Amino acid sequence: MLFHVRMDVKLPHDMADSVAANLKQVEKDKAQALQRSGTWRHLWRIAGQYANVSIFDVADVEELHQLLSTLPLFPYMTIQVMPLCRHPSSIHDDDR
Amino acid sequence: MLFHVRMDVKLPHDMADSVAANLKQVEKDKAQALQRSGTWRHLWRIAGQYANVSIFDVADVEELHQLLSTLPLFPYMTIQVMPLCRHPSSIHDDDR
Amino acid sequence: MLFHVRMDVKLPHDMADSVAANLKQVEKDKAQALQRSGTWRHLWRIAGQYANVSIFDVADVEELHQLLSTLPLFPYMTIQVMPLCRHPSSIHDDDR
Amino acid sequence: MLFHVRMDVKLPHDMADSVAANLKQVEKDKAQALQRSGTWRHLWRIAGQYANVSIFDVADVEELHQLLSTLPLFPYMTIQVMPLCRHPSSIHDDDR
Amino acid sequence: MLFHVRMDVKLPHDMADSVAANLKQVEKDKAQALQRSGTWRHLWRIAGQYANVSIFDVADVEELHQLLSTLPLFPYMTIQVMPLCRHPSSIHDDDR
Amino acid sequence: MLFHVRMDVKLPHDMADSVAANLKQVEKDKAQALQRSGTWRHLWRIAGQYANVSIFDVADVEELHQLLSTLPLFPYMTIQVMPLCRHPSSIHDDDR
Amino acid sequence: MLFHVRMDVKLPHDMADSVAANLKQVEKDKAQALQRSGTWRHLWRIAGQYANVSIFDVADVEELHQLLSTLPLFPYMTIQVMPLCRHPSSIHDDDR
Amino acid sequence: MLFHVRMDVKLPHDMADSVAANLKQVEKDKAQALQRSGTWRHLWRIAGQYANVSIFDVADVEELHQLLSTLPLFPYMTIQVMPLCRHPSSIHDDDR
Amino acid sequence: MLFHVRMDVKLPHDMADSVAANLKQVEKDKAQALQRSGTWRHLWRIAGQYANVSIFDVADVEELHQLLSTLPLFPYMTIQVMPLCRHPSSIHDDDR
Amino acid sequence: MLFHVRMDVKLPHDMADSVAANLKQVEKDKAQALQRSGTWRHLWRIAGQYANVSIFDVADVEELHQLLSTLPLFPYMTIQVMPLCRHPSSIHDDDR
Repeated sequence: MLFHVRMDVKLPHDMADSVAANLKQVEKDKAQALQRSGTWRHLWRIAGQYANVSIFDVADVEELHQLLSTLPLFPYMTIQVMPLCRHPSSIHDDDR
Repeated sequence: MLFHVRMDVKLPHDMADSVAANLKQVEKDKAQALQRSGTWRHLWRIAGQYANVSIFDVADVEELHQLLSTLPLFPYMTIQVMPLCRHPSSIHDDDR
Repeated sequence: MLFHVRMDVKLPHDMADSVAANLKQVEKDKAQALQRSGTWRHLWRIAGQYANVSIFDVADVEELHQLLSTLPLFPYMTIQVMPLCRHPSSIHDDDR
Repeated sequence: MLFHVRMDVKLPHDMADSVAANLKQVEKDKAQALQRSGTWRHLWRIAGQYANVSIFDVADVEELHQLLSTLPLFPYMTIQVMPLCRHPSSIHDDDR
Repeated sequence: MLFHVRMDVKLPHDMADSVAANLKQVEKDKAQALQRSGTWRHLWRIAGQYANVSIFDVADVEELHQLLSTLPLFPYMTIQVMPLCRHPSSIHDDDR
Repeated sequence: MLFHVRMDVKLPHDMADSVAANLKQVEKDKAQALQRSGTWRHLWRIAGQYANVSIFDVADVEELHQLLSTLPLFPYMTIQVMPLCRHPSSIHDDDR
Repeated sequence: MLFHVRMDVKLPHDMADSVAANLKQVEKDKAQALQRSGTWRHLWRIAGQYANVSIFDVADVEELHQLLSTLPLFPYMTIQVMPLCRHPSSIHDDDR
Repeated sequence: MLFHVRMDVKLPHDMADSVAANLKQVEKDKAQALQRSGTWRHLWRIAGQYANVSIFDVADVEELHQLLSTLPLFPYMTIQVMPLCRHPSSIHDDDR
Repeated sequence: MLFHVRMDVKLPHDMADSVAANLKQVEKDKAQALQRSGTWRHLWRIAGQYANVSIFDVADVEELHQLLSTLPLFPYMTIQVMPLCRHPSSIHDDDR
Repeated sequence: MLFHVRMDVKLPHDMADSVAANLKQVEKDKAQALQRSGTWRHLWRIAGQYANVSIFDVADVEELHQLLSTLPLFPYMTIQVMPLCRHPSSIHDDDR
């Protein structure tokens, strides 16, 4: 099942660079692991923003929330979730 | 080059069913042709809405506008465009 | 899987009363059938509004969209969908 | 009487983890007590958000405010309240 | 129980004057009856707007919705409802 | 002359409890004095919010601003002011 | 007493030119009469908009509403009203 | 040339009173000098807000920006600028 | 003097094609004349929208309003105007 | 390819003046280098705001994001990006 997720990240200005760098690295490792597993299907940067649009392929909503809420950057993110489904005009049976 | 496009469709209530049906069919034909050409890379339905999220893969902005503005449903659509680029955490060189 | 759905209905002022009445009756019949099936788990009226908050219990997003987009009042509705999941403080294993 | 309440929680980034953990535990205890009493009838997590949708079953507005405003997390919450009533299409006499 | 209700009225421009006048008269009669009964406790005009702020004193939410949704102007109104309760700094036991 | 005023209060999280308690007490004393004088005619709590709706009965706008801007909590408030006047459907000559 | 009023005008596209022209003329006559009386103290066009910012000098809110709600263009206007008072840094005792 | 400017001021809560007082005094001195020069033509307080509506009479946009951006309170202000011009219904050749 | 103007065009769905085509042609002729005169300095299409961003170089606000309000498409446009001035980091004395 | 970018800058109030001054100087140097290269084609100040409107001429979206996200002030900016293309009414083949 696909979910469209937009994540806008805002780190506090007074966060130490080292802390921020570490946080980002842990986030990157997790994101890449989830991409390799096929769960985090698409991850694009929105040009000009510290934000991304992602497509998640999960079994259910529980898995989606578990995944998002345990991202290291979660406390610093504004997240918008939209459930997606197959479009009647799609030429793909299952547009992943 | 990738662009994230959200299209919300609102047909006038007093549009004849036949006119609406024809309009949708022409739109579907065009959308499917563009998908087969690889330009309209992803087309998902937003659950509960007469709206879609699409990812377009175009040479430049001119091509994007030409494509969107000549869609049969264009006059009945609210469109939001976001330019996308590769995310530093993406495991794909070019996440299409 | 649970989805929180808000539906705001706005019928055109120039719709004939008979047409509106029939539309509402067909909508009511469908809503009640879906409630009896357990799919439309909760249906509440938002006081002072021609709007409702509903909780849907569906297998997946496809089923949700199919259900919502084929409601007779769908063309006259503004719909907002939020995926729900179990709250860690809920005393219920599965708060339906 | 039913009230639909959305609670979005935002803890200050510089709050000590121990303080946050304690605050959440006290909140959880109170929430569970209120659920057992039947007052806090439904408590769902909004996927991807540090937010919940709840349905409260209270005698009157005073009780609702007393309950919400004394929640430990109240100072850190944005709360939206909507009064609910029975929907004419509900198959339940009293959809709790 | 008190509810704060804002009503913004927008009549279609092409509504015949006689129809509008009659609608307003029926609305006025109903509003005045409800005021005499003590249900519609306060009714103020928002300066510069075809809108009012009202305070309703009702037994419960059902009564509020019944009352609002059967106002003749209901189909032409945007309504916002806020439940009120006694303020801890009020010098009145029950500020009606 | 009547003015509808909504006040949303947001105290800084790091304000000492004693300072906050004192501020609230001074605010309460002033609010009660103004209620006794008839200036602060109505003061209701918006359920679920650290906010109130008030009706002020003042000689002119100057008095209103003087009163609001010297409230102890003024620096911590978001205030919205709407001038009110008699509604043509009011059964009261002067709905105070 | 001064009130800041913004008026945005939107005439229906299908209004006959002659009807629109007449409406505007009657509006102009009334506006000029009120300016001569000193009530409509300032009337400026917002560049690029069919809108104006006006400053009204009235005895009370009743007069303001009476004046605005009887403007010929009132049914076609979105109006925003802000009560003004003397600014402590103004060099004028009464900045009209 | 006239510009309508709204300034909403928000000073940090932790700013020392003396610093704030000094800042306001310097702002007042500058505002009064500009009023005497005729540049800052009108300065009104928006009732209930730490905000003002001002009308500036400047030679061009450069002068306007120079003036606004060098106000002592500029870093603490949200500013909205609207260019004004003569209204066709104004009885003044040049409504200052 | 430079003004940044965004124009969003929305033609009524029931406008005859011939009327729309003529309106657009007259608009185009006027826009091109103003570009040749140097007044309409830049005119760009916002991709995916029936909207443009333009930069106007005018003597004063009066000229800007005169120009915009007499565009054939003016009644069908939502217009936003922002006065521009030279940026301190611009390498151009006068960035036209 | 052209992109319209609006940048609103908000520096923390507690940033040391020297740090701010240095940040702005580095930003200015970079902006001027990019202008000389023709990439940062237009840079205008929005009057009354610590904000600018810029037109970027880049090869693709990647270059745009690279450029924007490495601006020294990027962490303190709210950025809005709109892809532009040639307007059918432009008299320029390529309006730079």
